[in-house]
Amino acid sequence: MELKIKPLGDRIVIRPVSGEMKLASGIVLPDTASEKPMHGEVLAVGSGRVLENGTRVPMEVKVGDKVLYSKFGGTDIKINDEDLLILNERDVHAIL
Amino acid sequence: MELKIKPLGDRIVIRPVSGEMKLASGIVLPDTASEKPMHGEVLAVGSGRVLENGTRVPMEVKVGDKVLYSKFGGTDIKINDEDLLILNERDVHAIL
Amino acid sequence: MELKIKPLGDRIVIRPVSGEMKLASGIVLPDTASEKPMHGEVLAVGSGRVLENGTRVPMEVKVGDKVLYSKFGGTDIKINDEDLLILNERDVHAIL
Amino acid sequence: MELKIKPLGDRIVIRPVSGEMKLASGIVLPDTASEKPMHGEVLAVGSGRVLENGTRVPMEVKVGDKVLYSKFGGTDIKINDEDLLILNERDVHAIL
Amino acid sequence: MELKIKPLGDRIVIRPVSGEMKLASGIVLPDTASEKPMHGEVLAVGSGRVLENGTRVPMEVKVGDKVLYSKFGGTDIKINDEDLLILNERDVHAIL
Amino acid sequence: MELKIKPLGDRIVIRPVSGEMKLASGIVLPDTASEKPMHGEVLAVGSGRVLENGTRVPMEVKVGDKVLYSKFGGTDIKINDEDLLILNERDVHAIL
Amino acid sequence: MELKIKPLGDRIVIRPVSGEMKLASGIVLPDTASEKPMHGEVLAVGSGRVLENGTRVPMEVKVGDKVLYSKFGGTDIKINDEDLLILNERDVHAIL
Repeated sequence: MELKIKPLGDRIVIRPVSGEMKLASGIVLPDTASEKPMHGEVLAVGSGRVLENGTRVPMEVKVGDKVLYSKFGGTDIKINDEDLLILNERDVHAIL
Repeated sequence: MELKIKPLGDRIVIRPVSGEMKLASGIVLPDTASEKPMHGEVLAVGSGRVLENGTRVPMEVKVGDKVLYSKFGGTDIKINDEDLLILNERDVHAIL
Repeated sequence: MELKIKPLGDRIVIRPVSGEMKLASGIVLPDTASEKPMHGEVLAVGSGRVLENGTRVPMEVKVGDKVLYSKFGGTDIKINDEDLLILNERDVHAIL
Repeated sequence: MELKIKPLGDRIVIRPVSGEMKLASGIVLPDTASEKPMHGEVLAVGSGRVLENGTRVPMEVKVGDKVLYSKFGGTDIKINDEDLLILNERDVHAIL
Repeated sequence: MELKIKPLGDRIVIRPVSGEMKLASGIVLPDTASEKPMHGEVLAVGSGRVLENGTRVPMEVKVGDKVLYSKFGGTDIKINDEDLLILNERDVHAIL
Repeated sequence: MELKIKPLGDRIVIRPVSGEMKLASGIVLPDTASEKPMHGEVLAVGSGRVLENGTRVPMEVKVGDKVLYSKFGGTDIKINDEDLLILNERDVHAIL
Repeated sequence: MELKIKPLGDRIVIRPVSGEMKLASGIVLPDTASEKPMHGEVLAVGSGRVLENGTRVPMEVKVGDKVLYSKFGGTDIKINDEDLLILNERDVHAIL
């Protein structure tokens, strides 16, 4: 499901996932303690940050990706009564 | 309504919206607490920031957009007895 | 009236205006408290800051413009017994 | 063994090695104390950081490399019950 | 009078002027208090700072100019028993 | 003797030398106190740091060079029971 | 006399001069107090700092120059029992 909001720059909107996450690749992420990176699903992505030559860096993450991210630097938002998170792509560690 | 002032660089002028915001897209934003991002309507936009190659980055937001923003870094102004806000586009998280 | 001094880089010289300001566009700015942005008239402008490619960014403000600015970062000067202010164009929020 | 996760930018995933490490090159690394650089095996690598001209810097490390790294700045993750580390290539001192 | 020393980069040498300064342009600068910008005469100028493309930015000030400057960041020197000041062109606010 | 490890970026591996160092050029460095720059022999060098245009800066030091360096910023490592140092080329003051 | 060491980047080696300095140009620098810039003779110069386009900035100072410099940021070294100083060209204020 894609969210009908358009993040600016290299921002993305994430729906945090609590508890274990089982992936097709066989990876199972345990319930994360608060000081560890978190995982979640990407709901919306921006157009990418602008380089000094005027072009945009294509986003590495896309809607639907499961990602591992650091909450530090992100911003909590509430949309349609759901708690979501806006953060910059640079705070995403990896696509799972 | 466009405001007859010209923000410089990538600055924009925002009219903050208090209380719930219902959008055509079906998004409903709750009344925001002060430590959360705020939402509002864009009244004026600048020409964009200048890159080191001398060109300007086209603004992603335009007059009339509903936006989600961080007030941190913005500047309160009062025009025609209305409380408005000037902030840089980089403090806007998303277009709603 | 243009002041016969030449600000360097992207500096400008401003004559601060106290009290309300009535503009053709109908905007009236109330008397500003000290922690708010101030308004004033531009008396002199520099040639613009130099980019890493050696060209200068054309100034967005020109002599005679009414501007909204942050005093923070500016420098008070006294010329012909008048209190003026020198500041960088990046401290100007908007042209009124 | 390559891990089925895709680090972003110039991030890599490392499996820390404890105790002495004997290499084919004849190098023997002692058991490392916590304030010294650590050694480990690279399990996954990103696409490289993006330069201001839009190209990516090719990664110097590849999957399977034994590396000497500084833990400072890295992020602990747990995948399939194994304690791993995500860090930027700039925190890798050398390939062994 | 040009001083026989060659400032490096965008440095200039200034002879501070104390007391009132009357200029041909009709500008009168009062005696400056220590926390205000100072005025003086330029005795020597450098070749200009080097940009990342390898060219130098031509100096805006030249020998003989009367300038308004911030002493902050400058360096006191004594040459032929005269107290002079070396500072970077970016600390010069305006040419009078 | 070249060490079989590959430093990343502009890193180098140094074997610190204690006491006086007699060179063909006749330079003799006295025993250095801890707060002074140290001297040593270069055992391995990286490929050089990457510039924003994607090219690498050729290393100025090469394996076998005697160098004067600041330990500040370097990282102690122990390889084959020998205490060595990894540091960036920018922490090397001069080739002796 | 040129010293047989090769400073890296834009570093130079200086022999500090104490007391007055009489120059052909007639400039005489008085004995400098410790908090003032110092003067000395350049014994060795590096190849210049590398710009982001990969070229080096030619050094402005050359061996044999008498210079005025700020000791702040320099590094004391002792070579052949003589106390010398290594510092970056940007810490040199002027060639005398």
